Amino acid sequence: MSQNSSAKTAAELSATGIRISVSESERFAASLDNTRYSALPDCVAHAEKPEDIGRILRVAHKNATPVTVRGRGTGCAAGCVPFCGGIVLDVSAIDFIEIDAAARVAHVGAGAVTADIDAAARKFGLMYAPDPSSHKYSSIGGNIACNAGGLRAAKYGVTREHVLALSAFLADGTRIKCGLPLRKFSAGPNLRDFFIGSEGTLGVVCEAWLKLLPAPEKKRAALAYFDGDSAGFEAVEKIMLSPLQPAVLEFMDVETVACVRAREPSFKIPCGSCALLAEFDSADADAEASLFISLLRELSNGTARAAKDDAEAEELWRVRRSASPAMYGLGNAKLNQDIVLPLEKTREFFKFFKQLGNGIGLPTPVFGHAADGNYHIHFMYDANDEGARSRALEGMRAAIEKAIEMGGAVSGEHGIGALKSKYMAIQHGEAELKLMRAIKRAFDPKNILNPDKVYTVADLPNAAPLKGVKLPWD
Amino acid sequence: MSQNSSAKTAAELSATGIRISVSESERFAASLDNTRYSALPDCVAHAEKPEDIGRILRVAHKNATPVTVRGRGTGCAAGCVPFCGGIVLDVSAIDFIEIDAAARVAHVGAGAVTADIDAAARKFGLMYAPDPSSHKYSSIGGNIACNAGGLRAAKYGVTREHVLALSAFLADGTRIKCGLPLRKFSAGPNLRDFFIGSEGTLGVVCEAWLKLLPAPEKKRAALAYFDGDSAGFEAVEKIMLSPLQPAVLEFMDVETVACVRAREPSFKIPCGSCALLAEFDSADADAEASLFISLLRELSNGTARAAKDDAEAEELWRVRRSASPAMYGLGNAKLNQDIVLPLEKTREFFKFFKQLGNGIGLPTPVFGHAADGNYHIHFMYDANDEGARSRALEGMRAAIEKAIEMGGAVSGEHGIGALKSKYMAIQHGEAELKLMRAIKRAFDPKNILNPDKVYTVADLPNAAPLKGVKLPWD
Repeated sequence: MSQNSSAKTAAELSATGIRISVSESERFAASLDNTRYSALPDCVAHAEKPEDIGRILRVAHKNATPVTVRGRGTGCAAGCVPFCGGIVLDVSAIDFIEIDAAARVAHVGAGAVTADIDAAARKFGLMYAPDPSSHKYSSIGGNIACNAGGLRAAKYGVTREHVLALSAFLADGTRIKCGLPLRKFSAGPNLRDFFIGSEGTLGVVCEAWLKLLPAPEKKRAALAYFDGDSAGFEAVEKIMLSPLQPAVLEFMDVETVACVRAREPSFKIPCGSCALLAEFDSADADAEASLFISLLRELSNGTARAAKDDAEAEELWRVRRSASPAMYGLGNAKLNQDIVLPLEKTREFFKFFKQLGNGIGLPTPVFGHAADGNYHIHFMYDANDEGARSRALEGMRAAIEKAIEMGGAVSGEHGIGALKSKYMAIQHGEAELKLMRAIKRAFDPKNILNPDKVYTVADLPNAAPLKGVKLPWD
Repeated sequence: MSQNSSAKTAAELSATGIRISVSESERFAASLDNTRYSALPDCVAHAEKPEDIGRILRVAHKNATPVTVRGRGTGCAAGCVPFCGGIVLDVSAIDFIEIDAAARVAHVGAGAVTADIDAAARKFGLMYAPDPSSHKYSSIGGNIACNAGGLRAAKYGVTREHVLALSAFLADGTRIKCGLPLRKFSAGPNLRDFFIGSEGTLGVVCEAWLKLLPAPEKKRAALAYFDGDSAGFEAVEKIMLSPLQPAVLEFMDVETVACVRAREPSFKIPCGSCALLAEFDSADADAEASLFISLLRELSNGTARAAKDDAEAEELWRVRRSASPAMYGLGNAKLNQDIVLPLEKTREFFKFFKQLGNGIGLPTPVFGHAADGNYHIHFMYDANDEGARSRALEGMRAAIEKAIEMGGAVSGEHGIGALKSKYMAIQHGEAELKLMRAIKRAFDPKNILNPDKVYTVADLPNAAPLKGVKLPWD
């Protein structure tokens, strides 16, 4: 059905010079994200410059063709997978980066790569703070769409806190300016705030003005091991009650650390321990690292230590970087989510989650951003064991419901997309959902923008994510 | 007309135990804000606890009675002045403050006083960063309503960046939760962001969860004088291009400083100078103050200096604190606004503004928050000279239009309220305004919440602000 409308839209756009891809390989490339869920769009429309987005939307709106906007496809919630068919609007070519050093502002295209923005800022002694772990590949438009977090959110907060202004297109192709690239702007409700975290459902961002900060001159990494997860949480609480403000505070639980220990014996990790990696970047980073060590000396059985130089820092960081690959020692497939927990509920949730894993016979490694309670929880399983996958899916549902019941969130930085829309009614009350839908209607009355995401429970194909697909960041 | 509806609403609310004020003195107290514009409401409904807000709104909604929510009346845009009549909903009694030190979160009622929240946090070594100059009197609900800024916004940003979650009531009395008190939350568009800066037009906030930061252990104030405003702007640019990140960076122009000099000869201010006051609060505050001095030594003719102790810091701060009262040496009345300017346009705007003042024969002292380009521009005049007031009003319109034309904003921290709604169509395009009105309708279809503000050009009474009214913060 959408195919007729898509074909009409594609033909009209082609006639005006918009590049349209219809080959199976190009449609496939635009069909999936980091989740490996895949659904072929009818075609892909490429925006080479901001105005192209308006031209594409005007035609799609007239023909009521569904539009799924796509940056670089690093998403973890199938937010850019076009289950509804229609066209994929690819904005990745709009990737300019301009730095205004005196104003401490980066003006960037939606397709600009997050790490490239930071690198451009560094040339002026500045930095772009948010660093989602996909930052070497992800587009800033995607970061804005899901209000991406990252490791440095411990100190610097999430994407939302670093966006000064946006330029965007509404569903009908009208261009709007959302805020101004100023550090203060109190002139009516700031439309910018509506777009951040809206996952392509309210409009299409084409340009952003980002806040830059003076880049810290120092960095000190520190690491400590603790005998059991509970001691690790006690360490986190000690840090949060101290004057320390770590730029990074990464927790790896006993199961995760055991995987790292098995894979990297040279790390000399104490048996049965969980780990906490901190990085301090204030002018007083040395003193912060010392305080970290003295606060945790006893609790960590003397393992707390700080890196003396960059080489040692790299050594400490390798423990954290090994976590994701090492987990595959527990199973060749994983199901993971990025829940958020209130600090005081962390222990209780962990007890629940570990019992859940025992009950369904699956390993449950967890790591996460301890300063903001954002934990990446995993079930590891055998990809060829359909039963294990089903148990993992059921277990994940129970875990997420528990997190929400405890006052936590279904997602801290990945967003809802298609995969988690079923949790919206648990996360939010009926009144909140009704209001969100009214807002969606106010922005997109024809419901053409990413129509099967976030607000409506997606009717996902039964198929599991594709196996054996290599993506650039793998 | 609204009076019948108000009377009905008041009677129904009284019957359910809501305290209603109808005396002229109580209605007058709820009729004005810091602007001294005043319009008597038909009655005042007092919310003693959050649920009262829902009860009041349900009845007002049923009867289509306009509702103007009121915190502590410190606003600078007549945002809580009930020009439309109806009822004032006073939330100032909901002023609880609870600190969760480990989570670094303050849970507060909408009526809690900003400075009290900060003071409560300090007991745990934490701070609430935003400090609008009204912070000793303003309510946090009002701060959220206009996305208040303040001096420390130079480093810490505005209210928006410090609100984790809100609980609010919609126009029909439905209670909603906007976000969760977590540092990361990416579960659909965050309704919290819609309320911040919406000036009581979309709903009524009853509770907020605020982000707290470790309180800085050090502070170093520094001050420098420059020969003419242009040299002062050069100094600001030098600082912004350096690695310095001042917590406070206050600019006072030549006209302002001349007033301070005349009023306080003991300050020994060089003739014809403008001033820059900085405060550094990083662990390296001493080094920051030294860099400030060395960067500006030549440009400031050797006047740049840092305070050695608290007493000296207080001495430097007195220059800034004297600015507002000293201006009355130029006229017994003032018309002021809080525009925002892009850094690179500051000099050009100042030239324009000073010429404007010369043209209409009125003094034009300016001070402001230089790190974020938020300047408080003034016309001083004689309160008994109606012609002078008219010229000031005309001049201010020209100044604001110029600021907007240069890529600046009509307001950085005060909001639009009633006084600046006429600038909305200059600040924003038609598409943006249309969208804002659609959002307003989605939230408040009957248009009962602060109905004559922000989105519609207010038909202000011809009367000027009241003269001779003393408010608690005068």
